[in-house]
This record gives sequence, structure tokens and C-alpha cells, in this order.
Amino acid sequence: MTRAFNFSAGPAALPEPVLRQAQEELLEWRGTGASVMELSHRGGEFMEVAARAEADLRSLLTVPDEYRVLFLAGGATTQQALIPLNFAAPGQAADYVVTGHWGRLAVQQAEATVAVNLAADTGPERYVDVPPVAQWRLSEDAAYLHYTDNETIHGVEFEGVPDAGDVPLVADFSSSIASRPLDFSRLAMVYAGAQKNLGPSGIAVAVIRPDLLERTGQPRAPILDYREHARAGSMLNTPATFNWYLAGLVFRWMLDEGGVEEFARRNAEKAALLYAAIDGSGGFYRNDVAPRVRSRMNVPFHLHDRGLDPLFLREATEAGLIGLKGHRALGGMRASIYNAMPVEGVRALAGFMDDFRKRHG
Amino acid sequence: MTRAFNFSAGPAALPEPVLRQAQEELLEWRGTGASVMELSHRGGEFMEVAARAEADLRSLLTVPDEYRVLFLAGGATTQQALIPLNFAAPGQAADYVVTGHWGRLAVQQAEATVAVNLAADTGPERYVDVPPVAQWRLSEDAAYLHYTDNETIHGVEFEGVPDAGDVPLVADFSSSIASRPLDFSRLAMVYAGAQKNLGPSGIAVAVIRPDLLERTGQPRAPILDYREHARAGSMLNTPATFNWYLAGLVFRWMLDEGGVEEFARRNAEKAALLYAAIDGSGGFYRNDVAPRVRSRMNVPFHLHDRGLDPLFLREATEAGLIGLKGHRALGGMRASIYNAMPVEGVRALAGFMDDFRKRHG
Repeated sequence: MTRAFNFSAGPAALPEPVLRQAQEELLEWRGTGASVMELSHRGGEFMEVAARAEADLRSLLTVPDEYRVLFLAGGATTQQALIPLNFAAPGQAADYVVTGHWGRLAVQQAEATVAVNLAADTGPERYVDVPPVAQWRLSEDAAYLHYTDNETIHGVEFEGVPDAGDVPLVADFSSSIASRPLDFSRLAMVYAGAQKNLGPSGIAVAVIRPDLLERTGQPRAPILDYREHARAGSMLNTPATFNWYLAGLVFRWMLDEGGVEEFARRNAEKAALLYAAIDGSGGFYRNDVAPRVRSRMNVPFHLHDRGLDPLFLREATEAGLIGLKGHRALGGMRASIYNAMPVEGVRALAGFMDDFRKRHG
Repeated sequence: MTRAFNFSAGPAALPEPVLRQAQEELLEWRGTGASVMELSHRGGEFMEVAARAEADLRSLLTVPDEYRVLFLAGGATTQQALIPLNFAAPGQAADYVVTGHWGRLAVQQAEATVAVNLAADTGPERYVDVPPVAQWRLSEDAAYLHYTDNETIHGVEFEGVPDAGDVPLVADFSSSIASRPLDFSRLAMVYAGAQKNLGPSGIAVAVIRPDLLERTGQPRAPILDYREHARAGSMLNTPATFNWYLAGLVFRWMLDEGGVEEFARRNAEKAALLYAAIDGSGGFYRNDVAPRVRSRMNVPFHLHDRGLDPLFLREATEAGLIGLKGHRALGGMRASIYNAMPVEGVRALAGFMDDFRKRHG
């Protein structure tokens, strides 16, 4: 068996110790006579898995006690539809800051149920920067302000939580959650699909300040209502139990490795290695994002000659480096270097890039 | 390692060969250098898994070619919220036939967005029968008629697809899909959470007649829109890839075992064994459902003396029979005997029940 260094953007590489533990206990979990995925979500055994995962995530992210932590089916896109339904009155305005593909999709999910105000949109400048807050065109009484902390496709990441005044900040952290310490003092809601830094696809996490949950919102089914999920402890219906269990193993692994401070250190090192390989290539590789807001999680780059793309991908795969093909929206390459990607993997990629450049430059 | 006979209602027992295959390839899948759960959903490898799963499900259920088959995040409850949003105009009526707990919940999910007409509701008679269609109070112009083919908690199952005239039938088959041949000629939509007969929790299947997808419905986000999911081949956003893969392994296993005809035969045999143990117990065990509509999938029963419940459950667990505790709404016991439960498991349970009765009767 040979495991490659996997640079997929999501579903993404998982920590090997997590996969090994899941493999070992796949047919029988802790003497229950069944796989964890065959156990009732309401039984004591799984309730303990669920509670432990929540406690570990709270500890990992230093979530303030009063915030609710929800484990929800699906991914981030579903949350983008639920946010206006739950937190905006019919016809109310909400501010959206769009710094890439996913921010634009968040607007599309919201348009049917809220008056979207584009407070900022860097689309016309091809999503290579984050404009300063002073340039945002904020509404008078927005229900909330939505932004995307890290743009997985365009490789643009906020430097920190923006200071946009009193409007409640709602942020998509799908590709950056748990990659560095997070300051909740200005955040009203953080959400993330699990499949980048937290686990497999099929489950999402939402951390919500309690005052948001007191809002009336708009007419909606109970299953689309965050209050109902909070009241039911994320078990309003049968949750994605195996996905939840795997996410819990990832949380524990991250805590054991030293927590988000340690991952912030490793992620900075990995990003520095990779951007150095690009910037030091004399134009053979290119990344156009403003250095200040370059993503530490997703590094998109182009070869100076796109005719070399297929060869680059083929040779990379042969060298045990997979998942490097860029998103179809941008083409080129993308290396996603989430928490589960070790520094050695990025070093191997940077080495391969140098070698490829020398042979084809 | 000891695997018990697991009678959980869902998440439920999975076929052991499926778990063994998943275990074997958990760290590296078919020479890709990664686990299937670490692969991009848009890559060729996973696209093949997805397409194969759909083809196998179509074959298993004999789905007419023109129907769309969707794989969706979450479970059946989410579909209960989406059905009125997608298929009813604002203020339009929809007929609901309620024969148990889940039918009642389907009404609760729909009430915010459709004028629910309770065409039938056996709640006042404690959900032990299915009233004949002639007694249903149908609307003049219902958007659709919703019913629950098998009530997982109350153990009430329709004898076949009801003939309710021209109204499009939308049916929750969560706990009975693929347990017997299904006649789509009168069904406009069938949906099911996977975690009973099809796989692990966290993914649902919907089979939809194309004319339903042409309806305007109500304002909604793209992610809540079945048309968008159909257009995107169930990859509108990152799907629950590992859950989809596991469901695919279950479909293949069912086909290899002889398909739904064979499972219908086994399920009839299992149900007959279990109801015989109940009915032949001289009142020690009791099931009040009208014999004509007793579920072949979920067999709820009470002990004549509920004081014996804890002892029954403890001794059953010691005998390797787990997951028998009834739903809190009904108390008592429930044996769920989906496709993955072998006849030997039901024979072991029936034998244990006889023995327990002799010792405590």
C-alpha cells in the first residue's frame, strides 16, 4: 500500500492515524458488537462520541461557552441558504463581501430570501485582493455581514477578523477553520463544511452566538431552523453519524498534535515553502494574489506555459503528488495544504516544482 | 472480534461483506494513493463510483429511465421540507396521509410552506392500521399526495402503492426501499434516508418523475432546489462521498445476492418468524397492528409485563442480540429486520424470545 501526498481541495487528505484507527474499529467499535456507523444515534455509545467531538471542537477553537456548536448534514452551501432564512426578516438587507467564487455563491444562495447588498466585490479585479473595510459600502441596518475567510479556489485569505462595526459578522471558514487561532469576540457565526480541515464530506459545523438564535427569521420548516437543531442537540433527525465520529477523531488528533497554535506554525511554514518555490521560479510559476492576503491553505498557481500543464500533472502523480489540478474556474494548478498535509509533503512538492522547472524552463 | 445481530432501526446493520471491503480499502482505494473519502468528488475515480451507484440503484429498483435519481445530503426529513417548496405553489393544498410518527413529522415540515390537508390520520386510533383509500378525504387540486410507505416506529406498512387517482403520489420509503419490488407507474416521487436499507446515515436518495421537476414551486435557494441538483448530477456542492461509496457497495451486494425479489422472499420469511413468536406467545408478547399492514421491516412489540423490559434487553444483549429497545414514543421493544439482517439473526431472536417467555412467563 502506498499513500501519496494528496493536495486535493476537498474532500481532502485526512490524517493517516485517523484513517488507521477508523480502519481498525470499522467492524466492531469498542465492544459494542457493531460498527460505529451501525449504532443508533440516540444510544449511549454514540451520544458519547457526539458529546466528545463537540467538547474537543470547543476546546480546539476556544469557543466561548455561550455560543452554540451545531453538527449539521451537508456542507457549507446549505448553511448559505439557511442563514438568511434564520437571521433576516423578509425583505431585510444583508451585506455580502465577495472576495472569490464561494462568496459569490453565498450571494446566490441568499438572493431568494434577503435583499443582498454587495458591500464589496473584487470580481471585476479577478479576485486577487481583499479591499480594506474603509472601502466597504455597508448598509444602514443589515441583518448581518457575510464574508468568506478563505477563498478555496482563488487562494485569497483574510488577514484576520475584519472590524466592520456593530453588524453581526457571519463567516464561511470552510477551508480555514482550525488552521490558526480564531477570535470569536467579533464573530456572530462561523460555519464550515468538514471536508477540508475537519473530516470527511457530508457534515458541516456551525458555531452561533445565542442572540442570533433569538431572531424570528422567515417562515421555514423545522429542519431548516437552527433553533430547532440547537434545541435538539444536533439530533433533530438522524445525523451523519460516521462522518461525525471521523470528525471527532480529527479533532482529537489536532489536539494531540498541539492544537491550532501548532498548526498555525506548521501552516505558515508550509505556505512559505510553496510561495518561495513560485516566487523564486523566475516567472515559470505564477500566483497573482496580493502577498498580504495569500491563502495559507490553498495555493493556486499557473505555469508560464499552460501547454505544460498535462505533463506537470502526470509527472507529479508519478512522483506521488496528487490532487494538484486547479479548479475548472481558474485552470492551472492548486495545492491545498490543510492541517493534515505534513511539511514533508509540501517540501516534496516544492522540490518537484524546482526540478520540473529546471527540466522544462 | 464479535459482531452481534443488530436490530437497530437506523443507523442500522450493514452487510458484513460491505464493511469488510470498506475496511480493506480504507487507506488506499484502487491504487489512487488515497482513501476514497480523500478523493475529489469531481475526479474521474469518484465520478465512476457515483455513476456506478446510480446505475446499480436504477437496476435494483427498476427505475424507469425518464425518472431522475438524486443522491442528497442529510436524510428524509430534509426532503419533507423541500417537497412543498419545490412542488407546490404558494398557498396551494397538498394531501397528507398520516399512518404513524413519520407521516406526522412530514406534515410538520410542510406546514410552513403549503396548505396541508390531512386526507387521513390514524393518530386517534393509535396508528395500528392503514385506512382504505375510499375513506381518504382528498382535496380537489392537491399539488401532490404524501404518504409513508412504512412507519418505522409504529410498524405499519402499506400493502402496495395506493390507487388515489391522478394526484401525484410522493412517498417516504426510508425504511422499506429495496425491500421488495416497487411499482413506479403510480409514483411521482420516492425518497429515502439511506440509513436503514441502503447504507450509512448522512445521505438520502430521491427518485423523481420529470414532470414534477418542471414545476415552479416557491422562491428558494438553489441548494434547496431539486432542479438544480438534477442539472448538476447530484454534485451541486460537495456530496457526502464516503456515504455515497458505501451505499454503492450495499447496492452491489443486494444485486449479487439476487436483487429485491430475493430480499422480498427473505424479508417475508423473517417477518413471519418474528410475528409467529409474538402471536404464539399466549399474550406474553403483543403487537397491535392490523395483521394485513404489519411491517416486514420494523416489528414493535411489548412484553405483557413492562417491568420485565430491562431484563429482556440485558439478556438479549448477553445473547448477542442488540438494538432492541423500542422508540421512546412507544416504549417496549422493536426489532428492525432490514435487508442486511440474515434469517439466522431473526431465528436467534425468535428462539431467545421463546426461551425468555418460558423462564419468565
